[in-house]
Amino acid sequence: MKQITQHDILAMEPRFRTTFINSISGFKSLQMVATINQNGVSNIGLFNSIFHVGANPGYIGMVFRPDGPEHETLSNILKSGFYTLNNVLESNFKSAHQTSARYLAGVSEFAACGFTEEYIADFAAPFIKESTIKIGLSLIEVLPIKINDTKILIGEVKHILIKEEFIAADGYIDLAKAGSTTVAGLDAYHAANLLGRLPYAKA
Amino acid sequence: MKQITQHDILAMEPRFRTTFINSISGFKSLQMVATINQNGVSNIGLFNSIFHVGANPGYIGMVFRPDGPEHETLSNILKSGFYTLNNVLESNFKSAHQTSARYLAGVSEFAACGFTEEYIADFAAPFIKESTIKIGLSLIEVLPIKINDTKILIGEVKHILIKEEFIAADGYIDLAKAGSTTVAGLDAYHAANLLGRLPYAKA
Repeated sequence: MKQITQHDILAMEPRFRTTFINSISGFKSLQMVATINQNGVSNIGLFNSIFHVGANPGYIGMVFRPDGPEHETLSNILKSGFYTLNNVLESNFKSAHQTSARYLAGVSEFAACGFTEEYIADFAAPFIKESTIKIGLSLIEVLPIKINDTKILIGEVKHILIKEEFIAADGYIDLAKAGSTTVAGLDAYHAANLLGRLPYAKA
Repeated sequence: MKQITQHDILAMEPRFRTTFINSISGFKSLQMVATINQNGVSNIGLFNSIFHVGANPGYIGMVFRPDGPEHETLSNILKSGFYTLNNVLESNFKSAHQTSARYLAGVSEFAACGFTEEYIADFAAPFIKESTIKIGLSLIEVLPIKINDTKILIGEVKHILIKEEFIAADGYIDLAKAGSTTVAGLDAYHAANLLGRLPYAKA
């Protein structure tokens, strides 16, 4: 095995390092984050730093970089307090990837990338009609990370839109059946195949 | 589609809710976290709330629950400042799952679950010999999450052990080739198949 030190990493060509470090931590939770601004312009941002924070109530975290293309998503969430997570499918991962392009202010990724806005009563943010698992969140905590000026936002789960057939008798959601994808690095989309579910481990 | 509200979620049977909410946010980054305590007892904890925080330098975050079985991992990291992430393979996901059992203090999951400790010069924490991608981290920031008393730890990438054949010319790491798995919920292990890598998206 090759040993790569921090010194080697810091000496890497910047784009090589970005790709390398973004893929080292494993397959990632991939979601399209949908929001709307005060002028009624909807937005989709593509995020892969999403993580489970708590189950009771349901809390989900995500990371915002200071220099990322996600400024409109962050601004819309901070102003409105609401956002949705929508899964990326095997059948539309190319359109989902296209939402990561930097569109001009006033241009919605919904129209530009071929997605459809979907609204439910008493919830301000749009869902993405084409997704098969959708989560409506309200912002509950913002954590600044000091060392590199990123932010973590924690959202509380308010609404879930899902086909009942994806939910097993014990609450497990069959993400493979739902067509959900995962990403390695910033651009390598993967489908997933179940190896097995294992019982609660005992010593 | 079925709409599930926060009210419905709070009314779910607790184990059903834990399984449900743990699988809703998508496929997760799965790592065995290895540490050692002051008495030389090594430890492996299984974690799936791991996320990319920065590429220059490399920063990786992970979540610790207040009531989780990961107390020894947390205690070891806070005392020693060092820990390693080691990927879970298609060939050993059952042994990896077994590390999530609650072993008595003084019992190492390395011996109990059939893993081998591997050390490198000038780095205190053990790596897992059987893994194919391994990351040595030093603790750099602890973020308390107020709303549910969990903690986020941020680590700085100090060492990476990896076979060179997994690293593409542009820095991309082929996780599928490395045999890395991903998890849905707490117990559903998946292999991943590349659908495609896409070029940087332009508007």
